[in-house]
Amino acid sequence: MIYSFRNDYSSICHKKVMDKLIESMKEQNIGYGEDYHSDNAKKLIIEKLGHDADIYFLVGGTQANTTVISAVLRPYEAVIAVESGHINVHETGAVEGQGHKVITIKGQDGKVLIHEMQHILDTHMKTHMALPKMVYISQSTEVGTVYSLEELKEIYEFCQKNSLYLFLDGARLASGMAASGITFSDLGKYTDVFYIGGTKNGGYLGEAVVFNNKEIAKNFDYAQKHYGALMAKGFVASIPFEVLMQGNLYLEIGKKENECASYLAEGLKKLGYKFYSNSITNQIFPIVPKELFFVLEERYGVELWEKLESEFYAIRFVTSFTTTQENCQEVLDFLKKYQCN
Amino acid sequence: MIYSFRNDYSSICHKKVMDKLIESMKEQNIGYGEDYHSDNAKKLIIEKLGHDADIYFLVGGTQANTTVISAVLRPYEAVIAVESGHINVHETGAVEGQGHKVITIKGQDGKVLIHEMQHILDTHMKTHMALPKMVYISQSTEVGTVYSLEELKEIYEFCQKNSLYLFLDGARLASGMAASGITFSDLGKYTDVFYIGGTKNGGYLGEAVVFNNKEIAKNFDYAQKHYGALMAKGFVASIPFEVLMQGNLYLEIGKKENECASYLAEGLKKLGYKFYSNSITNQIFPIVPKELFFVLEERYGVELWEKLESEFYAIRFVTSFTTTQENCQEVLDFLKKYQCN
Amino acid sequence: MIYSFRNDYSSICHKKVMDKLIESMKEQNIGYGEDYHSDNAKKLIIEKLGHDADIYFLVGGTQANTTVISAVLRPYEAVIAVESGHINVHETGAVEGQGHKVITIKGQDGKVLIHEMQHILDTHMKTHMALPKMVYISQSTEVGTVYSLEELKEIYEFCQKNSLYLFLDGARLASGMAASGITFSDLGKYTDVFYIGGTKNGGYLGEAVVFNNKEIAKNFDYAQKHYGALMAKGFVASIPFEVLMQGNLYLEIGKKENECASYLAEGLKKLGYKFYSNSITNQIFPIVPKELFFVLEERYGVELWEKLESEFYAIRFVTSFTTTQENCQEVLDFLKKYQCN
Amino acid sequence: MIYSFRNDYSSICHKKVMDKLIESMKEQNIGYGEDYHSDNAKKLIIEKLGHDADIYFLVGGTQANTTVISAVLRPYEAVIAVESGHINVHETGAVEGQGHKVITIKGQDGKVLIHEMQHILDTHMKTHMALPKMVYISQSTEVGTVYSLEELKEIYEFCQKNSLYLFLDGARLASGMAASGITFSDLGKYTDVFYIGGTKNGGYLGEAVVFNNKEIAKNFDYAQKHYGALMAKGFVASIPFEVLMQGNLYLEIGKKENECASYLAEGLKKLGYKFYSNSITNQIFPIVPKELFFVLEERYGVELWEKLESEFYAIRFVTSFTTTQENCQEVLDFLKKYQCN
Repeated sequence: MIYSFRNDYSSICHKKVMDKLIESMKEQNIGYGEDYHSDNAKKLIIEKLGHDADIYFLVGGTQANTTVISAVLRPYEAVIAVESGHINVHETGAVEGQGHKVITIKGQDGKVLIHEMQHILDTHMKTHMALPKMVYISQSTEVGTVYSLEELKEIYEFCQKNSLYLFLDGARLASGMAASGITFSDLGKYTDVFYIGGTKNGGYLGEAVVFNNKEIAKNFDYAQKHYGALMAKGFVASIPFEVLMQGNLYLEIGKKENECASYLAEGLKKLGYKFYSNSITNQIFPIVPKELFFVLEERYGVELWEKLESEFYAIRFVTSFTTTQENCQEVLDFLKKYQCN
Repeated sequence: MIYSFRNDYSSICHKKVMDKLIESMKEQNIGYGEDYHSDNAKKLIIEKLGHDADIYFLVGGTQANTTVISAVLRPYEAVIAVESGHINVHETGAVEGQGHKVITIKGQDGKVLIHEMQHILDTHMKTHMALPKMVYISQSTEVGTVYSLEELKEIYEFCQKNSLYLFLDGARLASGMAASGITFSDLGKYTDVFYIGGTKNGGYLGEAVVFNNKEIAKNFDYAQKHYGALMAKGFVASIPFEVLMQGNLYLEIGKKENECASYLAEGLKKLGYKFYSNSITNQIFPIVPKELFFVLEERYGVELWEKLESEFYAIRFVTSFTTTQENCQEVLDFLKKYQCN
Repeated sequence: MIYSFRNDYSSICHKKVMDKLIESMKEQNIGYGEDYHSDNAKKLIIEKLGHDADIYFLVGGTQANTTVISAVLRPYEAVIAVESGHINVHETGAVEGQGHKVITIKGQDGKVLIHEMQHILDTHMKTHMALPKMVYISQSTEVGTVYSLEELKEIYEFCQKNSLYLFLDGARLASGMAASGITFSDLGKYTDVFYIGGTKNGGYLGEAVVFNNKEIAKNFDYAQKHYGALMAKGFVASIPFEVLMQGNLYLEIGKKENECASYLAEGLKKLGYKFYSNSITNQIFPIVPKELFFVLEERYGVELWEKLESEFYAIRFVTSFTTTQENCQEVLDFLKKYQCN
Repeated sequence: MIYSFRNDYSSICHKKVMDKLIESMKEQNIGYGEDYHSDNAKKLIIEKLGHDADIYFLVGGTQANTTVISAVLRPYEAVIAVESGHINVHETGAVEGQGHKVITIKGQDGKVLIHEMQHILDTHMKTHMALPKMVYISQSTEVGTVYSLEELKEIYEFCQKNSLYLFLDGARLASGMAASGITFSDLGKYTDVFYIGGTKNGGYLGEAVVFNNKEIAKNFDYAQKHYGALMAKGFVASIPFEVLMQGNLYLEIGKKENECASYLAEGLKKLGYKFYSNSITNQIFPIVPKELFFVLEERYGVELWEKLESEFYAIRFVTSFTTTQENCQEVLDFLKKYQCN
């Protein structure tokens, strides 16, 4: 393989994260997240939010989604998500595994639509249908799109009006923030709970779950342990955030990823390729002839996203904190040559 | 109210069921389904099937659906159903409550389509998506339609080929059998597990779960108790089936319900009403002006099914074992008069 | 079999309950517990309590225990019970099945001891241990003993002081009330939630769950449906209570059962038999030689309770609403003869 | 604090593990455990076992316990453990959270006793009690004791005879193996499934779950994802094992920990202290006066294990891969001085 564009979790971690880990090798820390690194990472996040919050460090995205949803909802309560939402498609029924229905709406461009959520509420039948109590969105979405600040506000207001909690999955938050201009302060104001993805944004693991709504965070430590989501070495989960939350590092990682993806997308457009979605984040979805996909898969590890008509495939390129403009140019050069043959 | 067409569970039970209950008042029976009545009811069902089967008596439909699905599937396995399926819409997330994802397909006329199920299998992604392992259908469906024997066979063959279990919800099986011509022997051959609805077909309660596939029935008694679905007075759950399975009583109840519904539907068509679905069972869905719905709701307890465009409502009339042709004629007479005003 | 003393759920129901059922055959009622009979049964119960309460009619004991516990507790919260408690021993892990740990204490005579519960609280370790949040007791207990009013009050005060909910399982409440002198008004004052057993006290089925603490009853209708514990024919579950709650019928059934059990116990004592527990309710546990147990099992359906030392068995006789003094005398006569051989 | 003896998870990881991590920084690996490091770690483990096995890398102990138990058992099946077992006491009801009852036996010295397990089987009541299907043991145990090879064999034979799976929790397996002489080859022969603890034995995280019984491992990848226990960066979970499984490193870590603990224990004995358990592993439990505990807590981070009579406390010292003989001598020196005052 020349360079893998398969995903944004193929390399261990950002150099600065590793430096911190090495630096901390000599320490003895208290377990289960009651250590200095966890406290420090929380402090840095709270500074960015501009208000107090309850913060917990979990290992991965599916775990974070499931633990948050199950800790907050009552058994008969459900979460609304778009059909393409990660919790609905790619988590092997983890949310249902803890007892909660995922009520799906079609959405548009991977994003929820308020009128569709309103329809769910309007057609709810007391007692006989799972009670919608939370809205799940992700920034960026599964198809690389982002919510604008205006859209986020509107959704949050809708939730507030209808007694729904708003939960934002930030597995790819760095890229999503860079693309949308939404800040931590905005996330602090316009969600009940969200998480800051570490795994896909330079950490070796970790998702920092941030409860702006402290009431629903009550006893989350118990839930975390109950669902097997509490690390004995809690500091291993928080150290990445101690680093990523320094200055603008997190955002810069997202920005760089987006720039690379954009550079690649522009080049692909010039070469005549159409796209499956209007992504401005670190995942792009060009449409290529079936046979080209197999070539690209071998050279760049790209994945098939969806089989379209007439032997065309939508495929996915993902840039990460390791991707450079040179990596992208190499793809474009290759394709130029490929097209000449 | 003149006569309630609200549903098929508004009266206690068929007279013959009550007679048997009264007759059994003096007895002392063993608990938890190990009694004579349960044995006898099983024997009668097995006679109709024409082959051996494992049979259990549960209380109601949601309980039967959830207990069967949870007892048979592994935690990460999912059940395929149409979007309008009872388990997907009207069971308050009970199946998800026991950990299983319901994978939905659009379907047509309330029925599954094989090519849509095939698409689910084709786009399944190992490890990352809930594993489809069962297909859930109901006879009759939520919109009053039925599977033909040909359709049932085809679905069963599809399931067999793809290692999926076929589970048929028979909450309204009497009406469904009468309308489709499908026999108990057919159900015995072309499903892995199904249940014979008692609650909505003349019993005061009860659903007889029939496992043709005895392998998946292993330890179902434990599952039944584990999910709170085992009655201490098991004979109370089986007595209705001892009666309903005598001769053709069950089928006759369905036939009579269908005849009444058909009589009513024909009359409504003559009066110019259109229908929401092509039901030939005991649920019919005429479309009426909004204001007429409120009149009918008061006189006949009918329910709103769906708000359509231009102030028209699809509403539901349900006939039951107590409904007579006179009850239906009274509705038609009323509507004739109503239209003249 | 001469007469079965196996349990108190071997006969369909009390004659008066059946009369009411027959009387209601002609009616059409609304489904899912929104009917007249349910309202009426609730009214009668509330009159006995002397204060308002939220009341729901479920089918059986395991279902009632599991649904109440799961609806009230958060996932990581646990219920304290004695080791011999029904939820710990004889419900096939139903409470755990819905995610909750049963924390056991030894107790004494089938009853919880406050100092043991205090020890659970004292040794609780934040985050790392399931959080005790409810105490489960039953009246009468598994070994036929009862809590006195004084004991109940003390337990309730302990619970109040420690933010624990008190839940009383009343599967055998009629007998328990008759033996203890505890009234519905007492149960209304000194529990958060309890249920009035129908199945084992003259109903053909049914347990009336009474929430004195209305806050924890919020959305219980959703939980009831979610756990498959809501009957379509809700009136079938409430009719028994409409009858049993008339005047003193419920208590009289318990009193009669206890009198028969006491008559039998006294006779057995005179014949020289020792007892396994000091029951004053409708379950008694004489100790007999192994070979006699097999004789009694065949004649009276009695069950083995525990194998003791030296080939002696503790066995269980249960009286029910059908038991007469004659039935008991017959046992005593038989044993007298048996001893002479 | 002078040096923390609080636990064996206070330092990030063994130097060699960190070296490997740094060495791998430049790589791009496939996600979700399908990478080279995972394959290599599996290969090394299989070599030590001496036979093929299905191996999965999870993050922590509670997660490993819960995922294994839930993936293997049916909903109504239960796991037998000693009362002091980690899954019973210190996992916040995680196993119950996934629906399974933990059936407890008293045991002795933290270990299961066969006659007590036999009693569970003998008193099992079909349908009405959770079905015992697995035995959970840990090596070393919660109180620092170990099973001998003879004991392990006997338990495994008991399990085989009674259709129970044997699951060995190896959170502290390095120390347990060093103390007992049990080898990986023994674990491969005499358990159905066990795990090799990484977190507490030199890894920054990770537990390698080893299924000797491949039949029960079927679809464990789905279960792993379903329970949120599958890391996107799977190589982060396997790299520690790639290192620890090299040569005898794992065992040497355990040996060194045990030697330090033993050195400390011997010194304490000479100073006159009694012990709570006969540990020969890396956890020791001296009994000290209450006031001394507070002094030691501050200097060495030791934890209170149990309050004994007359103001004496059993406390816990834990040695880890970072502990030296000097650290232990310092404690002994301090105590000698302390006693003189």
